[in-house]
Amino acid sequence: MTVTRKHVAEYLDALAKPQASMGHLEELAVQLAVAQQNLAPRTKPRRIVLFAGDHGVVESGVSAWPSTVTTAMMETILVEKATSTALASAQGADLRLVDVGTIQPPHAGSRTPAFQDARIAAGTGNLATGPAMTRAQFQTAWAVGETEAKYGHEEGFVLLIAGEMGIGNTTPAACLTMLLADANVEIATGRGAGADDESLSNKRAIVAQAVERARIILADDPVSAIAEVAGFEIAAMAGFYAQAAKQGSTLLLDGYVTTAAALIAERLVPGTTKSMIAAHLSAEPGHRTALNHLGLKPLLEWNMRLGEGTGALTALPLLDSAAALLNDVAKLSDIMP
Amino acid sequence: MTVTRKHVAEYLDALAKPQASMGHLEELAVQLAVAQQNLAPRTKPRRIVLFAGDHGVVESGVSAWPSTVTTAMMETILVEKATSTALASAQGADLRLVDVGTIQPPHAGSRTPAFQDARIAAGTGNLATGPAMTRAQFQTAWAVGETEAKYGHEEGFVLLIAGEMGIGNTTPAACLTMLLADANVEIATGRGAGADDESLSNKRAIVAQAVERARIILADDPVSAIAEVAGFEIAAMAGFYAQAAKQGSTLLLDGYVTTAAALIAERLVPGTTKSMIAAHLSAEPGHRTALNHLGLKPLLEWNMRLGEGTGALTALPLLDSAAALLNDVAKLSDIMP
Repeated sequence: MTVTRKHVAEYLDALAKPQASMGHLEELAVQLAVAQQNLAPRTKPRRIVLFAGDHGVVESGVSAWPSTVTTAMMETILVEKATSTALASAQGADLRLVDVGTIQPPHAGSRTPAFQDARIAAGTGNLATGPAMTRAQFQTAWAVGETEAKYGHEEGFVLLIAGEMGIGNTTPAACLTMLLADANVEIATGRGAGADDESLSNKRAIVAQAVERARIILADDPVSAIAEVAGFEIAAMAGFYAQAAKQGSTLLLDGYVTTAAALIAERLVPGTTKSMIAAHLSAEPGHRTALNHLGLKPLLEWNMRLGEGTGALTALPLLDSAAALLNDVAKLSDIMP
Repeated sequence: MTVTRKHVAEYLDALAKPQASMGHLEELAVQLAVAQQNLAPRTKPRRIVLFAGDHGVVESGVSAWPSTVTTAMMETILVEKATSTALASAQGADLRLVDVGTIQPPHAGSRTPAFQDARIAAGTGNLATGPAMTRAQFQTAWAVGETEAKYGHEEGFVLLIAGEMGIGNTTPAACLTMLLADANVEIATGRGAGADDESLSNKRAIVAQAVERARIILADDPVSAIAEVAGFEIAAMAGFYAQAAKQGSTLLLDGYVTTAAALIAERLVPGTTKSMIAAHLSAEPGHRTALNHLGLKPLLEWNMRLGEGTGALTALPLLDSAAALLNDVAKLSDIMP
C-alpha cells in the first residue's frame, strides 16, 4: 500500500492532541512518513558524508579565500574541531570525509572521523576558460558518491546527509542552478563565503559565460553539459543522492551547493527528490529558486551559509521530534473514556 | 567579568568559519552564553516540569473541551503516550508532572514519569464571576513552582523548561497578557485548543470584564490583581521561573500560557527574563505581544499551539547545536598556517 500525504494527515488527526496543534512539525512528520512510505518513520542511525573538492575557477578570483583553505578545513574536520564535527557530535550523526579532488590532500595526524581518499584530480579545470571536468571524470565522481550511499545503507544508516567543502564551489552551484533550474544570473550568483562587490560582478560574468557553453549541449548530452560547470564534490553528491533514493534511504538536504547536486540527481534520475527533505534556506539568493524547482520547502530560514552539511545538522533533530509524534503518541480513541 | 553580547560575538567571529555564516544559530549561541554568563554554555542535563491545573471559567463555555480532558491528558503523560513525553524522550529531557489543582486527580496505574501531587483546590474559581484564586492560594502555587525549580537545580539540571496543561488556560493567559503586557482584547484572546466563533466572542467578553476588575487593584496590590485572573499552574510556573533565574538555571519558554507566567515572574521579580530563551511563536495571536513585552525573540514560528511544553521541546535541540558552536569549534588562528 502506498502511504500518501492523506494517510499520514489522518493518522496525525487521530492522535491525542488538538488537530494540527503541532503546526509545521506535523507537516514534517508527513514528509518523513511519505518519504519512507511508513507511518512509523525512523531517523536513526544517521550518517553525514562530507565530500571535498577544489575548483580551478578560484584562480579567476571568484572567492574571498584561497584553495588552501579547503585543505585546512579538512584537517580541522579530521581533528574534530570544525563546525560540522561539532554539530554531528551534538546531534548523534556518524561522520565521514571523502576527498573527491582537492589540490592538496590533508595530512592530519589524528584521523578520528573516517577518511576516504577518492581524489580524481588536483581540483577541477577552470570553468571560466573551459570544461570543469570531462564526462568520464563526472561519472567517476558520481560513482564515488554512489559507493558512499551504498556503504551507508549496508552499515544500517537510515538517514543520510551529504555535506560539502570546496573553496569556490558556489560558482559551479550558481552555474548548475541557472542550467537546471532556470535561475537568472543575478539570483543564482551570490557572495558565497564572502565575495566583495568586485568579485561578485566578476563571478557573475564567469557564470553567465560558462552556462552559455553548457546550454548548447544540454539537450543532446546532459551529462557533458553538467560536467562543463560542475565540481567533483558536487558530482559525487549527485551520485550519492540518486543511489540513496534508489535504496530507500531518507535524505536531508543542506544548502545551496548540495541543492545544486540534487538538481543534477533529479535531472539524471527523475524521482530522486521524493526521498529528500530540505533542511534550511541558505543566505545564497539562488537557493530558493533551486528548492522551488525541486518542489521542496525548507524547515528553517536561518540565514546560514557555511556549508559542510551544517544547515542539515542544525535541522536534523527536528526530524527526530516529527518521527516521535508518529511513533510514540497515543490515539485519542485509546485514552478517552 | 560580565559576559556581554559583544564578547560572545567576538568569540564567534574568531572561529574557523566565515563570519556570521551560521546565521540565527550564532544569535542563539549569544543568547545562551549571555544567559549563563559563560562562553562555554551547557544545555544538558535538562528537565521539563509539567504543571497541571483546572479552571473554573470552563463552566462559562470558553473552551471546546471539558475539564475532564486535563485529567485524561495527565494520565496519558503518566503512561508516556502524550506528545510531551514523546518529545521529551526524543530530545533527552527528564520529565516531571505536578498537579497544582485539577478537578479530578489522575489515577494512572503505571507512573513512569515522576508525579507530584500539590493540589491546592479542585480547580480555580470562575474568573467570569469572581477571583480565580485568593492571594494566599497564589502564593502557595508560586511556592510549588519555586520548590520544583530548586529541586531541579539540586539534582543537577542546568536547563529547565516549564510546560502546562489545563483545559481553559488560554483564558487566564489572555487576561494576564492584557493586564501585564497591555495587549488589547482582540489580540490577547485567541481560539486556544479550538474555540469556535461563538465561544471566542464569549471568551473575549469574559476576559475584558475580568481584566477590568484586576486593573483597578494592579498598582496597589499586583499579587491580588494577578490572582484575580490567574491559574494554579500559571502561578506555579511564575514561581518556577523566578527561582530558576535566581539560582542561575537557563529557562526555555514554551507558548502563550507559559509566557503569561513569565510576565508574572518579570513583574514580581524584575530581571527574571534575563535567564530566558523563547522557543517558538505560538499560533495564539497574543503571544507575539507578550514576547515583545519581555524583549524575547522566538526561535521557531511553526504555528504550534499544543502546550505541554511541546514547543520548547521541539526547539530544545537547537540549543545543543548553538552550545556546540561555542564549545567544540577551533579558532581560525589555531588552524591557519
